[in-house]
Amino acid sequence: MPPPSATAILLVSCPDQHGIVAALSAFITGHNGNIIALDQYVDTVDGVFFARMEWDMQGFALPLDHFNTAFASIADSHQMEWRLHQSATRPRMAVMVSRQGHCLYDILARTECGEWPADIACVLSNHADHASLVERHGIPFHHIPMPPNGKAEAEQQQLQLLRTAHIDFIVLARYMQILSPEFVTAFPCRILNIHHSFLPAFAGARPYHAAYDRGVKIIGATAHYVTAALDEGPIIEQDVIRVSHRQGVEDLIRLGRDLEKIVLSRAIYAHLTHRILTYKNRTVVFN
Amino acid sequence: MPPPSATAILLVSCPDQHGIVAALSAFITGHNGNIIALDQYVDTVDGVFFARMEWDMQGFALPLDHFNTAFASIADSHQMEWRLHQSATRPRMAVMVSRQGHCLYDILARTECGEWPADIACVLSNHADHASLVERHGIPFHHIPMPPNGKAEAEQQQLQLLRTAHIDFIVLARYMQILSPEFVTAFPCRILNIHHSFLPAFAGARPYHAAYDRGVKIIGATAHYVTAALDEGPIIEQDVIRVSHRQGVEDLIRLGRDLEKIVLSRAIYAHLTHRILTYKNRTVVFN
Amino acid sequence: MPPPSATAILLVSCPDQHGIVAALSAFITGHNGNIIALDQYVDTVDGVFFARMEWDMQGFALPLDHFNTAFASIADSHQMEWRLHQSATRPRMAVMVSRQGHCLYDILARTECGEWPADIACVLSNHADHASLVERHGIPFHHIPMPPNGKAEAEQQQLQLLRTAHIDFIVLARYMQILSPEFVTAFPCRILNIHHSFLPAFAGARPYHAAYDRGVKIIGATAHYVTAALDEGPIIEQDVIRVSHRQGVEDLIRLGRDLEKIVLSRAIYAHLTHRILTYKNRTVVFN
Amino acid sequence: MPPPSATAILLVSCPDQHGIVAALSAFITGHNGNIIALDQYVDTVDGVFFARMEWDMQGFALPLDHFNTAFASIADSHQMEWRLHQSATRPRMAVMVSRQGHCLYDILARTECGEWPADIACVLSNHADHASLVERHGIPFHHIPMPPNGKAEAEQQQLQLLRTAHIDFIVLARYMQILSPEFVTAFPCRILNIHHSFLPAFAGARPYHAAYDRGVKIIGATAHYVTAALDEGPIIEQDVIRVSHRQGVEDLIRLGRDLEKIVLSRAIYAHLTHRILTYKNRTVVFN
Repeated sequence: MPPPSATAILLVSCPDQHGIVAALSAFITGHNGNIIALDQYVDTVDGVFFARMEWDMQGFALPLDHFNTAFASIADSHQMEWRLHQSATRPRMAVMVSRQGHCLYDILARTECGEWPADIACVLSNHADHASLVERHGIPFHHIPMPPNGKAEAEQQQLQLLRTAHIDFIVLARYMQILSPEFVTAFPCRILNIHHSFLPAFAGARPYHAAYDRGVKIIGATAHYVTAALDEGPIIEQDVIRVSHRQGVEDLIRLGRDLEKIVLSRAIYAHLTHRILTYKNRTVVFN
Repeated sequence: MPPPSATAILLVSCPDQHGIVAALSAFITGHNGNIIALDQYVDTVDGVFFARMEWDMQGFALPLDHFNTAFASIADSHQMEWRLHQSATRPRMAVMVSRQGHCLYDILARTECGEWPADIACVLSNHADHASLVERHGIPFHHIPMPPNGKAEAEQQQLQLLRTAHIDFIVLARYMQILSPEFVTAFPCRILNIHHSFLPAFAGARPYHAAYDRGVKIIGATAHYVTAALDEGPIIEQDVIRVSHRQGVEDLIRLGRDLEKIVLSRAIYAHLTHRILTYKNRTVVFN
Repeated sequence: MPPPSATAILLVSCPDQHGIVAALSAFITGHNGNIIALDQYVDTVDGVFFARMEWDMQGFALPLDHFNTAFASIADSHQMEWRLHQSATRPRMAVMVSRQGHCLYDILARTECGEWPADIACVLSNHADHASLVERHGIPFHHIPMPPNGKAEAEQQQLQLLRTAHIDFIVLARYMQILSPEFVTAFPCRILNIHHSFLPAFAGARPYHAAYDRGVKIIGATAHYVTAALDEGPIIEQDVIRVSHRQGVEDLIRLGRDLEKIVLSRAIYAHLTHRILTYKNRTVVFN
Repeated sequence: MPPPSATAILLVSCPDQHGIVAALSAFITGHNGNIIALDQYVDTVDGVFFARMEWDMQGFALPLDHFNTAFASIADSHQMEWRLHQSATRPRMAVMVSRQGHCLYDILARTECGEWPADIACVLSNHADHASLVERHGIPFHHIPMPPNGKAEAEQQQLQLLRTAHIDFIVLARYMQILSPEFVTAFPCRILNIHHSFLPAFAGARPYHAAYDRGVKIIGATAHYVTAALDEGPIIEQDVIRVSHRQGVEDLIRLGRDLEKIVLSRAIYAHLTHRILTYKNRTVVFN
């Protein structure tokens, strides 16, 4: 019997039509599931329905390994894309990082404090700087240098390690290398990146310098899923902070570090708790 | 036949149990209603279910004057409290104001621009200052002085005018008089007030002076429904702005004016579009 | 004798060196001026000094028509650019607007309430929509259509009207026409525009549609001085509001209207109270 | 000779009068000091002048151990209170913590990353939970239990340890014990606390529960200097985050943790870089 707090989470998207919510809730209720959260959203422009349902596993009469079969008629008749998650299954996260450590420190602290229902499977870096930090948390650290003419080979090594570690998703915690399209394709909507600007403003390198030069009065950070197009993937979360002429580039970098780690952590939390659906390069995030 | 954009809005609260959403959506769908928005929320602490459903009136097979009868069995079996609204019915708002005009100006502008699907039925004030402003908008202005020993009588006059004007709700747009419990009771959850602080901080008079004296680094404004307890009604909306030691009381008042009018207008919009449910002195606002 | 509250405001920029603040304050103090505000900032990257000094005119021993002569030795020895303003002189503002009225309503309300120490000299529009609104405030309204093949001529007409009205600066309150370089050049750092995005993101037309398509989680508005390069002038003020997948384009437009009018009004206030210096396409705004 | 980047920082407050800035800058300039930052503020209500001056030590002709004598005539004639700091002297911070670790983790990370020019001299806790965390950073951890009938004795032990460690200031990083007036008096304006609400709202225990019950739409955190009156000391920094009816108490606690650690860290940074003056239970924070 599952513990009282164990839940199942169903994420659904499909063409909008009459009665989808009724069908979904009837299905869960019909198997004696107590729905504890139901969020739904209809994109009326494109006619697409999105929903997230979470129900208590206690008393739920349908074993989850029969879910697929039982749910097939509803899913097929509505042309649903869907995913089923269980809160009892702890996702395994890989972290990729370069020299700047503030996001890595924050992720390690949250995991160690038990703030997130997830495990860090491994940390990969193109620099050795954070080896001892990671290792003292008891987490494998892999230093894989990225020589200019050896990137493809290094990526192969990374992919091999990630597969071996059975990771569920990847967090780029200020990882300053551009991933190849092949790498990105291997983890669709499963690579989270933090970009240190308010995208689409200041995409690319040195955004704080660009923000300073443009004289903006607010700076930001953006967490997004990585796609083949640099800094153009679906945005998960953004936040900003007010600055003035008094803040130089170094101040923007200092203030931005806090934005980066908080925005990234909110995105990770939403991903971990299965709250994100993507569609047409946009995200639906059910909070 | 209703115009294509006309909708009906059902607001529901009841004890939480299995299958409410399924029952509600089956009911609307069963009468050929196309649900265009469905928001629901369960207060799991108290076990209360809240929902807002909006559906297109075009093609809806149940005449709304039969709704009550048809819906009774669902409503009764779930012990629902519910309200039905139609987007085609423009609510009638009364505005009460004292000397400060910034919220009144903002409300008049939004109404005149067509930003809100509502009409201003009348404006009441204990001062004559804004008579010509209101009258040039073609709206009745009633100057009802509030002499210290004649408040009860003045309130009777106000109530009489409000009844004659068939108003649906009242906006206190920086109205600096305290309403009697009898007045408040006459319009439950239908009087919106803007308080010029971040409640519960600085309730009562002169909140900007109190905020300055306390040396806060952020000031705020709060829109809430008026109840018999001063500044303690259910909060609808709040917002804040950062200040520093450089801002004196006059600056706080100046910056606060903008907060007040924007926060009040967001609350009015939520009320007008039937997005607010109240429960245990809290609001559920479906955005 | 000036009224007690009348002040003079000196704005200065020059190459940074030792002793500028000492020289400035000694000069004012030496003429018996009581400095009530002194803000200074040094751009240490470019070595430029900026200051704003405000002093009480009461008791100030130097008649302002002799200021130029008396101040020349300090100004010349430090290669200062400087401007002197008096709080007793009410600036004259022209407003240019197209069809959307929310910023115009807000500006009219603030002026009528006495919130700003300024006068609206005239309102120019390429549409007649707001004629009666403006005229009922007792302000001249000029409808100057902008036919595709008659823009140059229409601009000449505008310039003629603006000169006749002896205006000090121009506010583009959602004016949807692009000004010619000649027009812009006639009013350097004296044309304020509100752009309905968080610049540099979404410059150009239809920014809310672009923001929706990109799926951003925060939208913004930007007030800036107009330069020959569209949407690229020095930024004066920006603000943002959080949105989610639930907000469609129409919601962004609705929420953005409030941002636009507040951000524009803050920029106007800073300009009116002589708080803005520009340098290298950036602004120094002394709050 | 000091390194090029070493600076001196002078914090001054005194009754406002003509010529203070001139006198201060003439003094520094007269000793060949290059002023790189000068912030000043006059509280015109109470007639108090505040300033922060920072100048490059390179080339400064007055040895700092003679500063007191040389500055005395200016200081005395203006009745100044003043403090002199040197950027080259790293302050020593003590951290006091209870069970919740998120602020402690954040402080350790910032110190280890070199983000702050300060050292953690020791960590004191009434629980042993974080002993190994602190010790793996090479920092002394002292577990001093707080038995209900042994608080005075435990405080004596704390004071003894703090004196031995030659600490400059104390950070209460979610330390859930109330300090005695004697303890507070020993470190005036040198104990920073983070309170998990938007003070003065929700002072005292369990502020997130109180915020939930009140139904606020925004929650906050407040960093302040500790005084004898609980949660009433001078506020250094505050920040907020928007919430809705969907967030239960657990969500407020989760979101609040991030606020707490960021707000506390900003206050520590301002304290470390000698940007804070206090007056009448308010702070002047020169950013």
